[in-house]
Amino acid sequence: MKPSGIITLTTDFGLSDSYVGILKGVILTINPKACLIDICHNISLGDIEHTSYIIYHSAKYFPHGTIHLAVVDPGVGTSRRPIAINTGQYIYVGPDNGIFSEIIKEQNKPELIHLNRKKFFLSDISATFHGRDIFAPAAAYLSIGVPFHTMGISLSDPAILKFRQPEVKNNSLVGRIKFADHFGNLITNLDKASIDIFLDGASIKAIKVGELTIKKIYASYCDATDSEPIALIGSSGFLEISVNMARADEKICGVDFYKSLLVEISR
Amino acid sequence: MKPSGIITLTTDFGLSDSYVGILKGVILTINPKACLIDICHNISLGDIEHTSYIIYHSAKYFPHGTIHLAVVDPGVGTSRRPIAINTGQYIYVGPDNGIFSEIIKEQNKPELIHLNRKKFFLSDISATFHGRDIFAPAAAYLSIGVPFHTMGISLSDPAILKFRQPEVKNNSLVGRIKFADHFGNLITNLDKASIDIFLDGASIKAIKVGELTIKKIYASYCDATDSEPIALIGSSGFLEISVNMARADEKICGVDFYKSLLVEISR
Amino acid sequence: MKPSGIITLTTDFGLSDSYVGILKGVILTINPKACLIDICHNISLGDIEHTSYIIYHSAKYFPHGTIHLAVVDPGVGTSRRPIAINTGQYIYVGPDNGIFSEIIKEQNKPELIHLNRKKFFLSDISATFHGRDIFAPAAAYLSIGVPFHTMGISLSDPAILKFRQPEVKNNSLVGRIKFADHFGNLITNLDKASIDIFLDGASIKAIKVGELTIKKIYASYCDATDSEPIALIGSSGFLEISVNMARADEKICGVDFYKSLLVEISR
Repeated sequence: MKPSGIITLTTDFGLSDSYVGILKGVILTINPKACLIDICHNISLGDIEHTSYIIYHSAKYFPHGTIHLAVVDPGVGTSRRPIAINTGQYIYVGPDNGIFSEIIKEQNKPELIHLNRKKFFLSDISATFHGRDIFAPAAAYLSIGVPFHTMGISLSDPAILKFRQPEVKNNSLVGRIKFADHFGNLITNLDKASIDIFLDGASIKAIKVGELTIKKIYASYCDATDSEPIALIGSSGFLEISVNMARADEKICGVDFYKSLLVEISR
Repeated sequence: MKPSGIITLTTDFGLSDSYVGILKGVILTINPKACLIDICHNISLGDIEHTSYIIYHSAKYFPHGTIHLAVVDPGVGTSRRPIAINTGQYIYVGPDNGIFSEIIKEQNKPELIHLNRKKFFLSDISATFHGRDIFAPAAAYLSIGVPFHTMGISLSDPAILKFRQPEVKNNSLVGRIKFADHFGNLITNLDKASIDIFLDGASIKAIKVGELTIKKIYASYCDATDSEPIALIGSSGFLEISVNMARADEKICGVDFYKSLLVEISR
Repeated sequence: MKPSGIITLTTDFGLSDSYVGILKGVILTINPKACLIDICHNISLGDIEHTSYIIYHSAKYFPHGTIHLAVVDPGVGTSRRPIAINTGQYIYVGPDNGIFSEIIKEQNKPELIHLNRKKFFLSDISATFHGRDIFAPAAAYLSIGVPFHTMGISLSDPAILKFRQPEVKNNSLVGRIKFADHFGNLITNLDKASIDIFLDGASIKAIKVGELTIKKIYASYCDATDSEPIALIGSSGFLEISVNMARADEKICGVDFYKSLLVEISR
């Protein structure tokens, strides 16, 4: 893979400290020409499933040759391995804790390495900030064209987590709400393909979300009257529950409770 | 207009999701050399008036040739048009919903186009994320020098909203508070020029803000004693109500209530 | 110092307004090739000590030749001077109010200038936004190689604040909590070197933080059982109080109260 010079950053570091800035300084010290793009730094602390979702659904919008650096690393200081994944189109760098589960599952045997060459680390390795000491330097060296396989040893058993998938139960497709986005839309784990397979040409009888019943999948937010809850296929291909011109998370279930709700589609 | 290669981004997408990162990926895929600068992503959801203010008062600080991309788009999925505006100095790209009202009003007939050429869109157009599918690609193509008029058809009836202006009533100039900034300063819609015309050489008798009376316009925050509310002309040329070393929004009216307050200048 | 073309930005401007975007526009108008990197914009309003900490502990991770622009400026509009500091490795630009205290103390006579040449300012100087009108242009001109000494007059009496240091009292080393980071870790002002000197080879008897007693300094977050409060040396070299897989600020003392707590190490 020929590096594009672009490195994306995804972390749970937030924007109140200088942790993200320090990552960028470390990268620019190794590659002063790197183009650094933030994907998200406000991932909930240590939320591996959401990190996996964020990376999987945004990485593909970048030019081939982009290095995707992701540091959501609750196991920093343990023996979890630092890894890099080469899919031919992109290289991913981060901890081997499941944040790349969806990337790895999608690929037919991507190249994987355990980043264990100290010459590519900062000289002092802390026990608490491998983003700075290990991952940022690795991303930077890869972005200047250091060959992938020289950065570590081959690895065949990456952490792959199985996040909860939709299930068919009693003639319903049952999923759950993964997260609420900035607009308050409730994004479910029911993807369009799974819904289409389940329906198999039949039409939807009802979509139940907690106490709420929605009759169909709408085409866009504006097909609904204001403040009416609707379901639609969102921009990443998942069913989402929305309220036109208002926050679905507040309207439907209270911001804190959506994670416990089931979403059931009957046909 | 010769593009500078700089593209600014203004949205209400927030920084908790990957929506902004995805816009940038789409742009860099078309123009890997683009210089991407965030103006603001924390605009209140769908706040068209504030977006218009933000764009109008920050765009001019950028080099000529900058593309200003703004996606505050509560009507996504409706028939509101995607547009681009060429003022000769800058190109603006976004939805035709009034967010460019102040830009368009200031210009003597800027060039306007309806961005309707599908060859400049992403191949699949969602109903919910035109920032990614239409606006970001348009900005990117414009930044690599695709001629403005080839991107769409000419348009002569852009949405221009009339935001509430100061009025003279009973020998007072009456305005309102537009927003509280990060420091808690209350920014009004009373601009220096309107105040000067109203005063016409007379001096200020009082500035009333709800229950509060201020006697004059100060030169800077520090001309006041600590915790005294003052009025001054802020950095964008509007009267603002501030409290030296404290938050005016909290001190004067409670954070949530300032939008209902009138600001009256008497002479 | 040969400029790298990189300019970092540290402010208390927040991310809800366009103030940071405007700084960047001003810089790019002077130096369209500048590489602009955010260190932090969420510093508590006017917090000079924390700004000093942030700059001191992140600047050094950037390539030599980087310009570090810092605008935390509660005295804007007063007679506090705009300054620049040249350490040979980096140039710092900002108000002379103590935010560079740690940088200046560390250096053996860095070059200091009072930025007083109006030809390097914007043409209109507001009383409230010197970041835009004075500091951003100065950083930009320095980044294109305008010689340091031509930007102002030499200065020998910069503001250097003495922030509270650890003290030995009754055979204990007594410090305090400087701030809670995004993860809820409580970062103290007890640096590793001071602790080592105090212990002088002895072992720790106890670390007391308010009501809490911790027995030793751990190597990493994961050496503790979940939800157990621990002390460790954090990534910037200071003792920090953490709770594995949880927020120490909430667990130990309530988010708002940590600033009043003493941290006492006995041997």
